[in-house]
Order: sequence, then C-alpha cells, then structure tokens
Amino acid sequence: MKAIVLERKGEISIRDIAIEETLGPRDVRIAVRNVGICGSDVHYVQHGFIGPFVVREPMVLGHEASGVIVEVGAEVASLQVGDRVCMEPGIPDPTSKASRLGMYNLDPAVRFWATPPIHGVLRTSVVHPADYTYKLPESVSLPEAAMIEPLAVGMHAANKAHIVPGDVAVVIGAGTIGMMTTLTALAGGCSQVILSDLIQPKLDLAATFGPVTPVNVAEHDLADAVRDVTGGWGADIVFEASGSEQAAAGVF
Amino acid sequence: MKAIVLERKGEISIRDIAIEETLGPRDVRIAVRNVGICGSDVHYVQHGFIGPFVVREPMVLGHEASGVIVEVGAEVASLQVGDRVCMEPGIPDPTSKASRLGMYNLDPAVRFWATPPIHGVLRTSVVHPADYTYKLPESVSLPEAAMIEPLAVGMHAANKAHIVPGDVAVVIGAGTIGMMTTLTALAGGCSQVILSDLIQPKLDLAATFGPVTPVNVAEHDLADAVRDVTGGWGADIVFEASGSEQAAAGVF
Amino acid sequence: MKAIVLERKGEISIRDIAIEETLGPRDVRIAVRNVGICGSDVHYVQHGFIGPFVVREPMVLGHEASGVIVEVGAEVASLQVGDRVCMEPGIPDPTSKASRLGMYNLDPAVRFWATPPIHGVLRTSVVHPADYTYKLPESVSLPEAAMIEPLAVGMHAANKAHIVPGDVAVVIGAGTIGMMTTLTALAGGCSQVILSDLIQPKLDLAATFGPVTPVNVAEHDLADAVRDVTGGWGADIVFEASGSEQAAAGVF
Amino acid sequence: MKAIVLERKGEISIRDIAIEETLGPRDVRIAVRNVGICGSDVHYVQHGFIGPFVVREPMVLGHEASGVIVEVGAEVASLQVGDRVCMEPGIPDPTSKASRLGMYNLDPAVRFWATPPIHGVLRTSVVHPADYTYKLPESVSLPEAAMIEPLAVGMHAANKAHIVPGDVAVVIGAGTIGMMTTLTALAGGCSQVILSDLIQPKLDLAATFGPVTPVNVAEHDLADAVRDVTGGWGADIVFEASGSEQAAAGVF
Repeated sequence: MKAIVLERKGEISIRDIAIEETLGPRDVRIAVRNVGICGSDVHYVQHGFIGPFVVREPMVLGHEASGVIVEVGAEVASLQVGDRVCMEPGIPDPTSKASRLGMYNLDPAVRFWATPPIHGVLRTSVVHPADYTYKLPESVSLPEAAMIEPLAVGMHAANKAHIVPGDVAVVIGAGTIGMMTTLTALAGGCSQVILSDLIQPKLDLAATFGPVTPVNVAEHDLADAVRDVTGGWGADIVFEASGSEQAAAGVF
Repeated sequence: MKAIVLERKGEISIRDIAIEETLGPRDVRIAVRNVGICGSDVHYVQHGFIGPFVVREPMVLGHEASGVIVEVGAEVASLQVGDRVCMEPGIPDPTSKASRLGMYNLDPAVRFWATPPIHGVLRTSVVHPADYTYKLPESVSLPEAAMIEPLAVGMHAANKAHIVPGDVAVVIGAGTIGMMTTLTALAGGCSQVILSDLIQPKLDLAATFGPVTPVNVAEHDLADAVRDVTGGWGADIVFEASGSEQAAAGVF
Repeated sequence: MKAIVLERKGEISIRDIAIEETLGPRDVRIAVRNVGICGSDVHYVQHGFIGPFVVREPMVLGHEASGVIVEVGAEVASLQVGDRVCMEPGIPDPTSKASRLGMYNLDPAVRFWATPPIHGVLRTSVVHPADYTYKLPESVSLPEAAMIEPLAVGMHAANKAHIVPGDVAVVIGAGTIGMMTTLTALAGGCSQVILSDLIQPKLDLAATFGPVTPVNVAEHDLADAVRDVTGGWGADIVFEASGSEQAAAGVF
Repeated sequence: MKAIVLERKGEISIRDIAIEETLGPRDVRIAVRNVGICGSDVHYVQHGFIGPFVVREPMVLGHEASGVIVEVGAEVASLQVGDRVCMEPGIPDPTSKASRLGMYNLDPAVRFWATPPIHGVLRTSVVHPADYTYKLPESVSLPEAAMIEPLAVGMHAANKAHIVPGDVAVVIGAGTIGMMTTLTALAGGCSQVILSDLIQPKLDLAATFGPVTPVNVAEHDLADAVRDVTGGWGADIVFEASGSEQAAAGVF
C-alpha cells in the first residue's frame, strides 16, 4: 500500500510498502483518512531515534489518526463497515500490571505506532483492535478526529491536575499539546488560562478559545503576567508543554 | 431599624427592632439590598427550631445577602464606601482548629446569621467583618449576588466531588441548592447533568443551563433515565440535594 | 471431585461433583488447601439468593481460597508446580470499559466464584487464570492466605478513604471485613481506630492489633467514645462494615 | 537575655541581647530548652542571606525549638505554667487568603523565626502566641520535641504524596528532612523506602527505622536499586530532599 516512509534519518519517501496484516476476530480494518504530524515524527526524521528507540529499518510515520471502517472481525459487535472512527495509537497487554492498575498507557509492553520497529499510519489502511477504535459522534469531523490523540494528552494532564472550579492555570508553550491542554483546562473548570509562547500567531489563535491570556515571552515576562492576572496571588496550576528549561524557569 | 422578625414559631412581623452594632476597626457597615429566603428560614418559621437551635427570642431572618458599603472601619483597606458587596453569613474564629485546617465553615464556634440567638439580615443594615465581605465585579447584579451564598454550597459540593472532565453527574432535587449544584457541576467539568424533581417549571428552567437532562420523577424512573443517558454504564457522581430519602433511593 | 455443595436453599452436602475444567494455555490448576466462609456463603445457604443471583442448580460454595499449583498452562511463565498461591475470586473481561478504567472489580461481566451459576472453590481443585493467581511470600501461611481476599476489601476501603497520616478512623462492625479494615486503616496511617461491635470476644481480639479502641455498643455509646478519644473533635474517617442501619446511626 | 547571635555574615557570638517582648493576652512566655540547627541557619552564617532575606542587623539564630511555659496571657486557657511545649516557628495572619484556604504555612505575610529581620530562638526565652504553641505528650522528650518542626515538613510531604498503603517510596537525601520524610512515609503506609545519600553513617542510622533500603550513591546506582527492590516496576513516589540536581537526576 502507499505510505509515507522514513527510510533512514533525514530521508522520507512516498512509496508503496508491503505490510502484512491479518484481520483477527476482534480487529477492524480502517481506511485511514487524516493523520496529524507529531513532534515525535519530526524528531525521528531529524535525529533517527528517540531515546532507546532507533530507526534501523524503513518505518511508516504517523500516529494521530482517523478513518473509516472497511472490514470487521468475526467477533466485533461494537463497530461496523462505514463507521467513522479514531484510534488509540498504543496497544497494551490488557492483562499487564499497568493495565490492571488502570494505567495501560504506561504498560512497558505497549506497541505504539511509528515507534521503531512498529509502523505508523501515514498509509492507506491499517488493521487495529476494535477495543482501541472509537466511533465518532456526527458532530466531530475526520480532520478534527485526528486531533483526539493529542487532545487525550491534554485531558490526562487536566485530570491529574485535580482542577478545582475557578482555578487559574499557566500553560507553558502553545504547540499542539499546549493548545489541547488549554482547551481541557478550561473544560475542566479553570476560570482563566495564561498561555505563553514565542510565536504570536499561535497565541492569537489560542486567545479565541475562551478566557485565555496570551503572553508572548519574547516581549513580556511570564511571572509578571501571572502576578497581574492573579492580583499577586500566583497561579493554582502550571502545565509545562514546551519542553524548554528556559521557558519553565520563567514561572517557577 | 426596620426588619423582618420571627417573633415566635409561626409568627412573622415587619417592624422596627433595636440592634446595637459597633463598627470595629476591621468591620464595614452595609446597607442591605437583597436577601434570599432559604429553606432554613422557612423551617424556623414553621417549626421554631432546627436541631439544637431553638428560637427563644424574636429573631431577624435571612442570611443570603448583598448590599452596598456605607461605612468602613479604621483599618479596612480592601473596601470603601459605595462598594457593592456580598457577605459570608458565618463568622468563624480564625484561630480555631477547623479554621487552621482550612475548613472554617465547620468551625463549631461559628456565629451564623439567622441561627438563634444570632440575628439575620432581613433588615436595613448590618455591621460585618471586612474579611468576610466581598466586592462584586461589575458583571454581577445585587439580586444575583444574594445567590452567591447558595452558589458557594454548590461550589463546595463540586470541589469535594473530584470531578474529572467529562463526568456525568446526577443531581437529586431542583431546589436552589440543586440548581446551584447543577451550575457548578457543569462549570467544574461535567459533560452532562441529570437533574430530578417533581416540579416541572423548576426542571424547565434548569434545562436552559446547558447539557442538562431534566427528569420529572412523578412520571419517569430516575434510574432508567441514568441508564439511558449513560448507555447503561451509570453516573460518575451523585449529588443529593432533595433531603428526601425516597428521592435518593431512586438512584442508588 | 469432592466438594461442599449447596443443593438448594437450606441444604448442604459433602459429595462428589463432576466439574469439567480444561486447562488453557494461560491457566493454572490449583490444589485447594484453605477456604474462608464468607457471609455471602451463609446468605446463599439461608436464603437461596442474593439480589438477582438465585441458586437454581447445585452450586459449590466458597470464594476465599489458597492452595498449591499442580499444573501450569503452556504459556504461563510467572508460576510453577509447587508454588503456594492465593487467587482472586472474580475473573473480569480485561478489555471491558471497567477494566480499562482500572476498576475491573466492578466489571459487570465479572465471573465470580460461588455466585450462581458459577461454582465456588470448596472442592479439591480448580483451574484459574495465572493472571489472577498470586504466589505467596514465605512469610504468609496457606490459612492466612485464604484471608487475603477479605483483606483486599479492607485495603480497597483504606485506599478510597484518602487517609492522611495521624487520622482517627471509626470502623463499625468487628466481623471479618471490619477486622481487615481495622488492620488496613492502621497500615495506611491512621493513628487510632475506634472499633464497635456487640460481641466482646471479637473486640478483645481486635484490641491486640495496635492502637485500637474497642467499643461494645451493647454497653457504651459509640458517639460518646468518639468524642472521648478525639477530645470532642470527631473522627476523620468512618468505615461502615456492619450492614446495620442501627449501628451506623450511632455515629453519623 | 543570653543568645546565639549572627552579627554579620561569618561572625557568630554568644552574648546578651536586648529583645523587647510584651506578653499579649493570647500569648505565652516560654523558657527555651532545645533548639535544632537547620541548614538555613548555617546558610545565613555562611552567606548572610537566603534569597531576598538579607541579614542587615545582628540576628538571633534558630527556629526548631522546644521549652517550658513560664508565663501565660490573660485569655490563654489551653496552656499553663510548667507545660512542656513545642512551637511553630512561623506566625501567619489568620485572616489572610492563604490562611482561609488552609495553607497558612504559605501566607506571604508570615513572620518566621531567624528570617531577617525576625529574631530566632537560640536564646533563653521567647514570647509566642498560644495558638501556635503545642503541649507535648509525656512520651515526647524536649530534645525530641525540637525535631517536630522538621518532622512536620516530612509529614506535609507525606500528606501531599497521597500514599496508598503498600507504596514504595524513594527519598533522595538522608539529611534531617530526608530522615523525617522516611519516617513519615513509613507512618503514612509505604511498605518500603529506598533512601539515598553519600554519607554512610546517616544511611546506617536510617536503616534502623524499619523497611528502609539504604543506597550509598557513591558506590551504587540509585536507579538500579529501585529496579531491584521493585522487580523492575519502579517506585510509586519520589521525595527529593537533597537539593542536589545531580542526586535527583539519578532516579528520574
């Protein structure tokens, strides 16, 4: 099938690739429609590895995906051909210790798309367990659905933050994860999000989300902005979504 | 000053009453403008007591109040004459064990308006500590501000419920507290509130608050409604705001 | 195999019973050694049902069990023949919503021993998934291990109670669950447990567990005892383990 | 009165110092008996400041203290002359926002012993509010009581960690705070503490506290030790009590 393949560090091609996938009784086959490009995809292209995960063979990129069901396994009752879906990119062992503790996202045995040697989904179709494939409501478009994976990262952060209604949060970094965390912090009860970045158009977009105070830290001091917004009291929650030590140092 | 006075069980009058109040250095004097009538006010009128609190002398009713500052004590810096404010009805001992543990609302020594022998605020003015008097933003009217006290009850319930964004909550009872809890549950991240009552106009009003499913339990089974809304999974949180054992039994 | 069988309401026999059990690749076969008798076993004998679970066919009783591995499935790496083990009595669907949320104990599809129509383990052997079978440390005897199931109930209660070190807990009821909850409340940081019951020998035993104040509510008022122990402040946590409305009413 | 005075950076003397202290109606006067030396005391001696707090006038050192009541204010009912006590070193404004939120330790207006310009308690007596002075049980000696202040730091850390009974904790650093955190983590339900330091006698002492695995990071890798103790799973909680970036980097 056609796919976007990272051949080796620094070299991408769009070409046919043979991926053998058998449809198990609890699997579905999905025609992939939309895939987000994650910072990790870019990192694999630029560096050829992330930590212990090294690209040694050509690998299909992409793990933020939506699509349409084209085939269902014999035991699948929850989905049918034609359903519009999004998918979890990681498949854990459901009987592992992590899974039984309710944190299957941390299962060390997880098989995660576009993490060597597992192929990603920048390709025409993929076979996936029905258990990790979710039917979309009509109100969500396929392009939007490709953003549900990073949205889930923001949601997890909001859950772990134990937001109390009315809290003021700082989000450092207005990349995709920072944007999603801003949305989920507001959905989770924050009365105000102070969002910092260096790139003005991102901040301008986020300012349309609701009670968001954008701070361009090329021009303004983040700690000053926090003091202004909170009357000197400080923020209740800080989400770090920049990966930059320098950015984080501005608020703590 | 003029006041609404509970003379004894079953007997209310609107008359002048002499209340001596000295303005201390950290107090403010407030011209009372709006006062909500709480179920406890009604209960004192009908029964003459609540638990160990017995009406033995004529008592001014009312504890959900807003007003305008008319005089400030010598040490008060946070408020000035003309400020529109709402007030906490209970004054705790700030050095008590409960206060130091951050739950001054539970201080056994709290002096609470319209709880014998403490007069309430259905009267023309009241002296109150500035520390428990809050300036209103311009967006909040004085009648709305009189509802901040019951809103705080709902907010406290929402805080204690540890809402995770997306939770489905049941609120039993669409009285003032149930209404306020519905609003705070939504503000705190609930994606849906299932609200039960016997009185249709209350339910109709609450249905305008957002994603609220009203259930008139005179005609429908609450547990059935919960199963319908949640696809059989059940609610994540239940708030009991009816005080009715029969109502609560419908969902647990 | 030999088993203790509830033939019908009120009638128990010890007899041979044919139970077909195939050892799957991830299962183990366990020679059962010790089994606790739960209140639910007694309830099935006396009433023939618990809620919607009705005894319609002869059923082996017992679900609190320990034993020794006598056979292992082809894919089992974590256990071997001769291992001393205890077992979880309920087998959930590991891919269910409840399981993925980390609360597989609440999976509606759970298959639970000695809950009709599932046989219990008051019999000579049982086949069980290795994933729900736990090797014992040398310090734990087989009779003790049969109590790990009710201990887990106490542990779950202690976890949900969010104990802060130094908290004072009340445990209502000194049955097996109350005893286990007392132990786990102390292990979880409580500085004192106030334990109530009507049966003095149970209280005398529990008083040996550590800082436990036993209260025989045939002779003493529980609320008085709580006030005495806490200097009038009250308990931080209450665990209800009696199932008695009257008992619970004494402290709330 | 006699006191240990930091005259200026690097210069300490034991001499008479005049400190005017009036006994208010809610105060007590305490004959100081034991005072711990904190890292902050040493830091003021060596550097003359901590952050914005600069030693500009001679200052009495010491804030971890115990003593005996020698005089009580007119309104003090909770304490009497002769009581053995320990004291909180910081006096907050009980009506501040932080205090009302239950975190008076974070009140920006707190007056804290041995923090310029407030004198510490390495002196013969001190006047202190009765509200922040605690009577000791007979089982606690005065030298032990001087350690209650750092113990409270460990207790606060244990509370914030939301320990679940059975958790394995790592404590980085076996100084006073690390020692106290080890004790409180065990008291709070941890089944095992892995404690790291470079100084063997500290580790040897801590190993006597209970189920503590001491790791001398001059010779062993902390992450390896964590993997060994937890069977590769990792620790549930990490307490950083060393202040060393290098030490912390070993485990995260």
